[in-house]
Amino acid sequence: MNQEHLLIKALKGEPLERPPVWMMRQAGRYLPEYILLRNKYDFFTRVQTPELACEITLQPVDLIGVDAAILFSDILVIPQAMGLEVQMVENKGPFLPKTISSQKDIDALIVEGAAASLDYVSKAIALTKKELNSRVPLIGFAGAPFTILCYMVEGKGSKAFDKAKQFCFSQPELAHQLLNKITDVTIAYLHEQVNSGADVIQVFDSWSGLLGPEEFKQFSMPYLNKISDSLSARVPVILFPKGSWYAMEELSNSSASAIGLDWCVKPEFARQQTQNKKTLQGNFDPCKLLLPIPQIEQEVKTMIDAFGTNRYIANLGHGILPNIPVEHAKAFVNAVKNYRAL
Amino acid sequence: MNQEHLLIKALKGEPLERPPVWMMRQAGRYLPEYILLRNKYDFFTRVQTPELACEITLQPVDLIGVDAAILFSDILVIPQAMGLEVQMVENKGPFLPKTISSQKDIDALIVEGAAASLDYVSKAIALTKKELNSRVPLIGFAGAPFTILCYMVEGKGSKAFDKAKQFCFSQPELAHQLLNKITDVTIAYLHEQVNSGADVIQVFDSWSGLLGPEEFKQFSMPYLNKISDSLSARVPVILFPKGSWYAMEELSNSSASAIGLDWCVKPEFARQQTQNKKTLQGNFDPCKLLLPIPQIEQEVKTMIDAFGTNRYIANLGHGILPNIPVEHAKAFVNAVKNYRAL
Repeated sequence: MNQEHLLIKALKGEPLERPPVWMMRQAGRYLPEYILLRNKYDFFTRVQTPELACEITLQPVDLIGVDAAILFSDILVIPQAMGLEVQMVENKGPFLPKTISSQKDIDALIVEGAAASLDYVSKAIALTKKELNSRVPLIGFAGAPFTILCYMVEGKGSKAFDKAKQFCFSQPELAHQLLNKITDVTIAYLHEQVNSGADVIQVFDSWSGLLGPEEFKQFSMPYLNKISDSLSARVPVILFPKGSWYAMEELSNSSASAIGLDWCVKPEFARQQTQNKKTLQGNFDPCKLLLPIPQIEQEVKTMIDAFGTNRYIANLGHGILPNIPVEHAKAFVNAVKNYRAL
Repeated sequence: MNQEHLLIKALKGEPLERPPVWMMRQAGRYLPEYILLRNKYDFFTRVQTPELACEITLQPVDLIGVDAAILFSDILVIPQAMGLEVQMVENKGPFLPKTISSQKDIDALIVEGAAASLDYVSKAIALTKKELNSRVPLIGFAGAPFTILCYMVEGKGSKAFDKAKQFCFSQPELAHQLLNKITDVTIAYLHEQVNSGADVIQVFDSWSGLLGPEEFKQFSMPYLNKISDSLSARVPVILFPKGSWYAMEELSNSSASAIGLDWCVKPEFARQQTQNKKTLQGNFDPCKLLLPIPQIEQEVKTMIDAFGTNRYIANLGHGILPNIPVEHAKAFVNAVKNYRAL
């Protein structure tokens, strides 16, 4: 048997000489090899064709040398599986022609069998695991229920998701019904990902930071806990509620192995709030990848010095941007790989 | 002489039985009386015509009963005064056809005399002060230099202002030149506002929360300090760097009288971080104004209980939304006015 991968060791809290590294959206538009496929196949064709999803997932492993692969897919496959149409407008983002606003809308959502309709994801995972041949572990993922609700109610991306929040605040019973349905489908879907070979699960709550502390406790945290409690007996779970810095204490009492951080959170603050109970992941500002390479290397060193090499996964604080030169992405990854504490 | 206004007392830290209350964007689209003027005059006509700006500024004082007026204007009058065209696309936001990206662009900006070109603001303030007749104090304002840079570089609103941040990170010398020029014009402009009668100055750093703690120290805080240091000898200054919760300690060492908070910051955290040295302002989630009125009243009470009645200004954590019923805005304001600690 191979020695265990760095990512798994970091998630288990084993002592390490340097942290593992991967980048959110590492299979993305900064890679010319990805652009070639993007120009040939539309978004959901890439997501729904196991061979294409596999090829895209492997690109950053082969080209950049990251320590983990993350499945190429999208969080909005869940609304699709539940019966809502999702259009992906290239360079503009998602659009859902029919949104959720009433009891009737919620009643019409598919729950039973919804996860099973996403079998193309299972196939993509199985194929990717085979191609990876244990080089690096494979991360599966889903959107967190609050974030999925945001898109289902708002129907598109938004700066503040006011409509979605107002739905939650003014009709909390409907909101919880909807969140429970999304959670049930998401749990079944993530178990299928693990069945197919996902080694780690990350849950992206991209919009939880729009909620205040009390509302986060009400509309996000219980559903993150449900997912984590169900999955974490099988694989390590990473929760990334972006912007919810105020909830670090609750998060550190969850069953998850790790918490993702954006770049506004100081490493010292996160360590103190989590009392070193969790592995922390993050939090390089993606905009900093435009710095000259020597400065990227310096900033990466400063970041790892602050987090330490144990219970830490080096990553960005958000997805890599399309205009980042490939050499800069490589420099980021190599700076982590070459890290040595003095 | 009249008794001093509640807002001024709160900013001075005098003991109070209930906090003063006003709402960001209180002169805005939720008011049918504002909509009438909006349908008749375009945005910059409303801003640049003293009689219209005055009328709009007074509307929430007369109709809602807030404890302070805030001048109807826009933070983007500063780029305009510095020679950049700003178009305001109704319901869509600002657009600057020519953006800043080079030394040449920065050299071409007007500094000398820029503030003087905004004399319509002085006239609007003088007129408003006369009409207010000391009923409530008048707040003047400007955007913070980092936020103004964001618009000057990006050319429009943006979720993450990646282009503006990348400009700062990759060309810090140019960024500081630009920030210094904006700061100089802003200081001159705010002194003119005080000369004309503004009783308090608020500085809006709407996008500072997109910066990490180190970058905030580099690209935002020094310029907030310069403005506050120059103005605070004359009038109380309120700094509102939205989303920069991690900078509360630096902010509490500034010369400002008060710090604005968004709804993600727990009152206890803010009090502890500022060691009760500053007046705090905020932080009701604007989306909560859609709650049923009894719940708004309950939430306002909870908020004031947590902040206390001293060194506190009740407000929203961001601007009021266009779809809020006028009765709900009134209920928010009245709940503060009727507050009595038990």
